Amino acid sequence: MEAKSHLDRQEIAALTAEAWSEQLATVEEAEARSMLAQVEPDRLAEVIRLLDAALAGRVVGLLQPERAAAVLSHLPDETAAAVLGHPAVERAAEVVQELDPDDAADIVAEMDAPQRDALLDASGDAGDVIEGLLDFPEDTAGGLMTPEVLAVRRQWTVGEAIDAIRRRAEELEQIYYTYVVDSDDVLIGVVTMRDLILAPPMVLIDDVTRKEVVSVFVDTDQESVAEVISRLNLLAVPVVDHKGRLVGIVTVDDVIDVIHAEASEDIQRLVGAGADERTDSPFSYALRMRLPWLLVNLATAFAAASVVGLFQSTIAKLTLLAVYMPIVSGQGGNTGAQTMAVVIRGLALGQVPVGQGRRVILRELGLGVVNGVAVGAVTAVIAQLASGRPGLGVVIGAAMVLNMAMACAFGALIPLGLRRAGLDPAQASSIFLTTVTDIVGFGAFLGLAAAALRMGWI
Amino acid sequence: MEAKSHLDRQEIAALTAEAWSEQLATVEEAEARSMLAQVEPDRLAEVIRLLDAALAGRVVGLLQPERAAAVLSHLPDETAAAVLGHPAVERAAEVVQELDPDDAADIVAEMDAPQRDALLDASGDAGDVIEGLLDFPEDTAGGLMTPEVLAVRRQWTVGEAIDAIRRRAEELEQIYYTYVVDSDDVLIGVVTMRDLILAPPMVLIDDVTRKEVVSVFVDTDQESVAEVISRLNLLAVPVVDHKGRLVGIVTVDDVIDVIHAEASEDIQRLVGAGADERTDSPFSYALRMRLPWLLVNLATAFAAASVVGLFQSTIAKLTLLAVYMPIVSGQGGNTGAQTMAVVIRGLALGQVPVGQGRRVILRELGLGVVNGVAVGAVTAVIAQLASGRPGLGVVIGAAMVLNMAMACAFGALIPLGLRRAGLDPAQASSIFLTTVTDIVGFGAFLGLAAAALRMGWI
Repeated sequence: MEAKSHLDRQEIAALTAEAWSEQLATVEEAEARSMLAQVEPDRLAEVIRLLDAALAGRVVGLLQPERAAAVLSHLPDETAAAVLGHPAVERAAEVVQELDPDDAADIVAEMDAPQRDALLDASGDAGDVIEGLLDFPEDTAGGLMTPEVLAVRRQWTVGEAIDAIRRRAEELEQIYYTYVVDSDDVLIGVVTMRDLILAPPMVLIDDVTRKEVVSVFVDTDQESVAEVISRLNLLAVPVVDHKGRLVGIVTVDDVIDVIHAEASEDIQRLVGAGADERTDSPFSYALRMRLPWLLVNLATAFAAASVVGLFQSTIAKLTLLAVYMPIVSGQGGNTGAQTMAVVIRGLALGQVPVGQGRRVILRELGLGVVNGVAVGAVTAVIAQLASGRPGLGVVIGAAMVLNMAMACAFGALIPLGLRRAGLDPAQASSIFLTTVTDIVGFGAFLGLAAAALRMGWI
Repeated sequence: MEAKSHLDRQEIAALTAEAWSEQLATVEEAEARSMLAQVEPDRLAEVIRLLDAALAGRVVGLLQPERAAAVLSHLPDETAAAVLGHPAVERAAEVVQELDPDDAADIVAEMDAPQRDALLDASGDAGDVIEGLLDFPEDTAGGLMTPEVLAVRRQWTVGEAIDAIRRRAEELEQIYYTYVVDSDDVLIGVVTMRDLILAPPMVLIDDVTRKEVVSVFVDTDQESVAEVISRLNLLAVPVVDHKGRLVGIVTVDDVIDVIHAEASEDIQRLVGAGADERTDSPFSYALRMRLPWLLVNLATAFAAASVVGLFQSTIAKLTLLAVYMPIVSGQGGNTGAQTMAVVIRGLALGQVPVGQGRRVILRELGLGVVNGVAVGAVTAVIAQLASGRPGLGVVIGAAMVLNMAMACAFGALIPLGLRRAGLDPAQASSIFLTTVTDIVGFGAFLGLAAAALRMGWI
């Protein structure tokens, strides 16, 4: 997503929201309708997010049910639920009937029970379908799927199957895969629209069925569903219960958000926050995820501090060392974090084949040395000018080159080692890295300084 | 993606690769073929990545061209190119003819020019199509698209369109959208398979065409293409040249990798590495991306160090302060990084609507206080026991609560502020955060310690 164009859209949405807040209160209904008719549903959704719920409800109430449904499907579920609570229940039910049942279920799941029950009652058959979906946890195949799936029998002809698709095309979320079931509704294969179009109408479905169909269980977690769809390049995957019976279908657009969320988890794992933590997760959950890693880190911080402890007498001779000490360790931490981010992402995107780890470590070691020389030289000159002690400049420069080289090597080694050990390469990696950069940074700087002081060079 | 099941697959692939390296050299061709026939293409690809290129080439040469193409489409482009260089050129050409042209173009782009030319020459018409695609940069719509797209005219009937699809179904990558063009090949609309199936065969295409078709230009960058497909829940998007003429199509499976790569960029931006940097990017590119931020960070590190400089006389009185100082600043940095990771990802996933920033900052401030009290108490007890100075425990505990609270508040404030300013919330955020946690950490700890020393409490 281009950050800049995204912001431009947000700015446009903000200006529109401001204008509407004034105008919609005063203009006549017909005029309001014609204003709204000119805006695409995804743009409308961006504006509606910024309106207060009552006004947003009014806007959605003014739209045709089909357009209102398209707008709601672009909103976060909680927002859509709040908005849908405002129009009269009959009006809201018309919108619900136009939504895909899986989207509708996610939205009404955010309403309180009496409001939800009233709305589903008013929504007729669609309400019953949605009610059935509410039993599945939101983060499973059952929670993602739509139950509106066309199943045909193997003894049907291709012509009969096409007729069945034609009759139900309006309500089906996708018509590209048609699933084949036996007399117990057990999934036995799939026919694609391409197969149907290519085959003469009198051929039996059995003769064009692909038997090696991939399916997921209703309770398969959403990450695995997304992984199957993206690895096998599918447009949809059928969902079966534990008796193998076809109960629904998950389409690729349902898992794009899951792929987005999954792909960006490493940034949180890296620093020891929960992979699934959100800005609106319960406070206690956030605490439970984060505190243990902070305590692990505390232990490693004491280990690093004990290195400083070894050099107390050196610091007593020259307290200026305490001033420069954090610069050396901090720059190691920063350059190592850059390496680690690139390597962790590289592993996640499959850029580092097994056996290529050594090459990556050497490359990063090289980057660490070059960056270390550049940053160390600048620091050495500043330290020397500021302190008037040439020896101090040399010591700090040398310590930085050493620490930054180690930082980059370990920034690559830690995630690669975690992967080789069968662990998650990102999990709290930054904590291990900081331990290395603190210990090496403090040790190298203070050790060199102690030696230089003994020699009388500083 | 489940890390664990992924690793299991990798382990299986590694074992298989080992076994094959021995067996395939000795068994007869027929036996080798039947061994390979039992393995699914995506599994085969995982094994082939681990074989040396010559053996991998032999394996691919043994497969039927259609299966070989399926295997290659699961490999990274460079690997696929190396593998395809091994069989005889006529054999390789058969495989190329089975590949989707967009995938084939990505693969042959990795070969050296003489090898590529020989292979494309041997591939007949398919070779010409692929050659045309090589003109487009890989990271644009032109580089992602396949040129094999079916266009129909508005004056055709639905029946004629279906016949045309049937004739070309084998070679078309998707048949769900059929595009409508005028006599100059300019894109004017789209008909879905659903529209075609529902309409009587004698109806004119013009009557079922959707005119509000969304398209991208050949030179639109791949991030924007992915964004359009994912925002509008499309299965494919048509690609037009700057005269509006239909030249190809990008399907959703082509952009899933782009979505993956895009969604995980923030981890690199956060630490000031280039968003697009890979583990195999040129050394000079990595250096150019990373060094400037390290130098920015150096300036902020000197600012933090100057805070320590203010307290040199305090440190001279009690050098133990230099030992505990990095623990206070470091724990602030860690807890702040946790906050920052959750907030940056929350912004990227749209979890933080405009106007909700204050709520997020307060929540994080609360987390910082609670984590600070927990971690600060543990540290205070250890510091007191280790140093025998109760006052030092109190000072360090108090400084940690303060610093960790500030760290979390700023961990939220910095990315939210960057977003509000229209900047990228992730760009080098961690550098600004470290500045805050170092300055507050050193200042609070050494300031409190100086006061306590004056009072005789330590």
